[in-house]
Amino acid sequence: MSTVSLDHINTPADLRGLDRAELKEVADELREFVLRSVSRTGGHLSSNLGTVELTIALHHVFNTPFDRIVWDVGHQSYPHKILTGRREQMAQLRQAGGISGFPRRCESEYDAFGTAHSSTSISAVLGMAVASRNAGLDRQHIAVIGDGAMTAGMAFEALNNAGVTPDVNVLVVLNDNDMSISPPVGALNRYLARLLSGGFYAAAKNVGKAVLQHVPTMLELARRFEGHAKGMVSPATLFEELGFNYVGPIDGHDLDALIPTLENLKALGGPQFLHVVTKKGQGYKLAEADPVLYHGPGKFDPDVGIQKSGSPSRQTFTQVFGRWLCDMAAADERLVGITPAMREGSGLVQFEQQFPTRYFDVGIAEQHAVTFAGGLACEGQKPVLAIYSTFLQRGYDQLIHDVALQNLDVTFALDRAGIVGADGATHAGNFDIAFLRCIPNMVVATPSDENETRLLLSTCYQHPGPASVRYPRGAGRGVAVSESLDTVEIGKAIMRREGRGIAILVFGTLLPDATQAAESLGATVVDMRFVKPLDQAMLAGLAENHTAFVTVEEAAIMGGAGSAVLESLSAQSIQVPLLMLGLPDRFIDHGDQAFILSELGLDARGIERSIRERFGALCPPIAEAPADLK
Amino acid sequence: MSTVSLDHINTPADLRGLDRAELKEVADELREFVLRSVSRTGGHLSSNLGTVELTIALHHVFNTPFDRIVWDVGHQSYPHKILTGRREQMAQLRQAGGISGFPRRCESEYDAFGTAHSSTSISAVLGMAVASRNAGLDRQHIAVIGDGAMTAGMAFEALNNAGVTPDVNVLVVLNDNDMSISPPVGALNRYLARLLSGGFYAAAKNVGKAVLQHVPTMLELARRFEGHAKGMVSPATLFEELGFNYVGPIDGHDLDALIPTLENLKALGGPQFLHVVTKKGQGYKLAEADPVLYHGPGKFDPDVGIQKSGSPSRQTFTQVFGRWLCDMAAADERLVGITPAMREGSGLVQFEQQFPTRYFDVGIAEQHAVTFAGGLACEGQKPVLAIYSTFLQRGYDQLIHDVALQNLDVTFALDRAGIVGADGATHAGNFDIAFLRCIPNMVVATPSDENETRLLLSTCYQHPGPASVRYPRGAGRGVAVSESLDTVEIGKAIMRREGRGIAILVFGTLLPDATQAAESLGATVVDMRFVKPLDQAMLAGLAENHTAFVTVEEAAIMGGAGSAVLESLSAQSIQVPLLMLGLPDRFIDHGDQAFILSELGLDARGIERSIRERFGALCPPIAEAPADLK
Repeated sequence: MSTVSLDHINTPADLRGLDRAELKEVADELREFVLRSVSRTGGHLSSNLGTVELTIALHHVFNTPFDRIVWDVGHQSYPHKILTGRREQMAQLRQAGGISGFPRRCESEYDAFGTAHSSTSISAVLGMAVASRNAGLDRQHIAVIGDGAMTAGMAFEALNNAGVTPDVNVLVVLNDNDMSISPPVGALNRYLARLLSGGFYAAAKNVGKAVLQHVPTMLELARRFEGHAKGMVSPATLFEELGFNYVGPIDGHDLDALIPTLENLKALGGPQFLHVVTKKGQGYKLAEADPVLYHGPGKFDPDVGIQKSGSPSRQTFTQVFGRWLCDMAAADERLVGITPAMREGSGLVQFEQQFPTRYFDVGIAEQHAVTFAGGLACEGQKPVLAIYSTFLQRGYDQLIHDVALQNLDVTFALDRAGIVGADGATHAGNFDIAFLRCIPNMVVATPSDENETRLLLSTCYQHPGPASVRYPRGAGRGVAVSESLDTVEIGKAIMRREGRGIAILVFGTLLPDATQAAESLGATVVDMRFVKPLDQAMLAGLAENHTAFVTVEEAAIMGGAGSAVLESLSAQSIQVPLLMLGLPDRFIDHGDQAFILSELGLDARGIERSIRERFGALCPPIAEAPADLK
Repeated sequence: MSTVSLDHINTPADLRGLDRAELKEVADELREFVLRSVSRTGGHLSSNLGTVELTIALHHVFNTPFDRIVWDVGHQSYPHKILTGRREQMAQLRQAGGISGFPRRCESEYDAFGTAHSSTSISAVLGMAVASRNAGLDRQHIAVIGDGAMTAGMAFEALNNAGVTPDVNVLVVLNDNDMSISPPVGALNRYLARLLSGGFYAAAKNVGKAVLQHVPTMLELARRFEGHAKGMVSPATLFEELGFNYVGPIDGHDLDALIPTLENLKALGGPQFLHVVTKKGQGYKLAEADPVLYHGPGKFDPDVGIQKSGSPSRQTFTQVFGRWLCDMAAADERLVGITPAMREGSGLVQFEQQFPTRYFDVGIAEQHAVTFAGGLACEGQKPVLAIYSTFLQRGYDQLIHDVALQNLDVTFALDRAGIVGADGATHAGNFDIAFLRCIPNMVVATPSDENETRLLLSTCYQHPGPASVRYPRGAGRGVAVSESLDTVEIGKAIMRREGRGIAILVFGTLLPDATQAAESLGATVVDMRFVKPLDQAMLAGLAENHTAFVTVEEAAIMGGAGSAVLESLSAQSIQVPLLMLGLPDRFIDHGDQAFILSELGLDARGIERSIRERFGALCPPIAEAPADLK
């Protein structure tokens, strides 16, 4: 039935010879391919179903890879990957050794800029466009950015700069799909919704106007005037104020609107802004109906949809946090919870339902989130900021300058600390221990299991100053979690196994692996609980009756918890050989978390092997199954 | 002649009984006091002369300290300090033990939130306003923010969030003074300039309108229509779009405009936005004529003005960087220079003049600045980002996620690393070694003098990946700087003094002090040059014929360069006692740089003393003047 086939699209050039009808067939096939492919591997679905036509139109109209497309966040880039020679590789998406779920420069010449954290695309294309201008190249630079990402300050900074940069070929495509998902949280989203309330423009005609005339016609003025009279505002004003030529909104699933509009925009110089409206999950009814559920599913049968798992699986650390937050909020009315647009991911759904006036989704705005928490703390509230380790990097200055320096009572709940699995290097929670422990006044806690997470959250919450609790992505080992809101002494470690010779000092959830290694080695195991303040007395005590130390952490070794132990020993003039186990000094690709930890020697076997390699003379002989240790 | 006197204003309450004429007298006295006071201590001048009337009006109208005022950046808060009981303390402004040049919570109950880095105020007052709402308090929360600070993404994030937060008493006062200083660099500044082009409103009347009617009158609509017809845009649109009630622009030096406007706004609920126009340096002709020169002067005679120093003083590190940048740009046309709104402070004035098309001031936008550099690097340019150590904290995620992860060729020139002197803890450049060295692919260089700074800038520039060079505020010791663009081997240390027993490993400009201590101690001195990569071979070699190591750095000890040495020794199974000298784990107040370093034991005498305390048995007896060492 089909005259063209996705099978024959190996590069975008293959799209350029097709007519409009053929492109529509490709779109249908591509949508089906995305659905089938993601259902087999897991990955982002809703966002990619929403960008099928836009991707085809961009590659059809623009001369990629010479022209540059930067996909903001990048979780909507699967159609792009499929059309740029990676169709077959989709079968290994986000798996160790397979292609990434995000654009990567090292993966394809069509991936002009690696993305994953939001709101970087306009800055990147502006840099590229300036370089092209300086080199005299007539190249186009396109940022495709969602309405959520547009609320981040970084996007505003880039718009503000781009709007006054002369002679740059920059096209910002705003992929507006907020209408179909969670309620808009910021003024910008409300503004975009108002723009849409006027309905779609007839795209080609509208662009014609934008191209042909630089001053508004009287008709146009009258229309704006009417808009004002209705209490509405003239469309496009905000982006035009920032120096862009605004076109839109147009239907992002209509190739007949997209292609002529993009062709017209291509001919224009200077900063261009195209407002495209798409629907998350477009074309797959189940995803359209529940785009959040289908945002980033695991494997599922597309004909049946995602099925609720029958038996309750082990609790995730996110769930442990979410429950603790509700319980502590019930016990202390000063508690307020803050998320920078990660309600689901950070486990705040229940909290929002129970405590709607104490729940704050501030949008993708990590900088603001931290200082907003500081302001709340100044007036006697007790804010808990739920944030992924990797995203706290965005609020680092605010943590130092606004919270820690003023010693304000803010609790940072750091999810996704350590190896994050399928999301890979961009989302790595590897650095928080290093970048937090150097900051005065900060408490840095590293719970070793689900129950310890609750215990240390309560402890850090009750600490009248800035404190952070880090916990990893995913489920724990199934440790039962107490319902109490008890606390422990800040900066006090706890002996878990008394052995001899070697003392293994564990910071975080690798404790069971370290303990298993210790069983084999006859070693002591201490759950250090806190990187800062560090239990220096425990270290001094251990040094008296042990001949070597090992530190274990799921964090960068450089500057990490092991490094803190070395500093303490040095300051106490204690000489004990120390082996530091943790994450090496390189970015770590995506893949299964347990597999990666094993590859890095951070499972029980790897920990034992490393200790034997370094301190073999102190270890008992290998008792059994020596082949396993190879 | 005066019926009131500043001498009698001890708290803002004393202002509230005064009539308009008396307040004007106070303003004149206050302006004179600011001028005389700053001329004796040094400090920020232009910005404070610009906020005299605004400060009086705010404290007159609002019930401070119950109502909260947050001064964004805070370098315009001297009038506020003078009116809130710190008039006498101005004589010790920014001096060790004296009051800070910025608002501080620990200094006064009138300082509702500590500031210094820009663009935090709206986030802070929003947090406070939410807390007040939750507590049922009828309190006002005012952020006073400059037009420059308004361009930072963080301010946008806060506006975006505030505009949709129900029932908060937030007043944002935009203190717009860009007209009188450097050319506007962003689209927002151009927009503000367009707003001003319509001239001042008659304030009271305008506010009356805003209060009394929620829909524009036909007259108002006609005015906007006319604005459109002229190619202008209706004033206020942008801030109104974000959910604020916009009023302005009004003359910020006219108490007759300010006071009634603020009184009207005080009566309104929800997010309010007042656009005030002031002139930097207002009332002091010399500062009005050259607000940049009078932005942050040292001591001067106000009757004569700032005099050019006759004899050329020693070169600052900033100057060394500025000259290097011009020389390297002349040699390599791929070089582009980027600053986030710090042209003067970062030494880029000459570069902009010589290479205007390769100079980029991106506004107060550190996040954007870093990723913009990344985009440039993708297309074969070689960006150099000149940024203060403390401000790089704002672009930390972008450095990790956009630059280091993609191994892009961006050079970070980190000025004001270490102790910054009069600006104090908020500007501390203490943390960069810790937060940079944990990031894979980063090169971290710590030049020890002016010439080394040039050498390591060239070296890091030629390195085809991300690299940072840190150097301190102020002048070096007067070392002659070569004109060459030579490079050295990355990661290679250099022996400066061959001694015995103790090896002092120096990272940065404390080298002369360390060397002086070494002379007395007979110790070895090594200029390590790089924290990352670290010269591990040098460490192993030194360990063979030394019995103790000392590390010296002007950076936080926690996670710093000494910590990197410990990690290396540990990884190499080398046991050498090590003493780490550097900045302690606390925020360090303002004061003279040399004085603070001395207090911290980081001058020659202190270094020697610390080494003797720790490794006395390894040191020769004190040869002379032992009293000096006490």
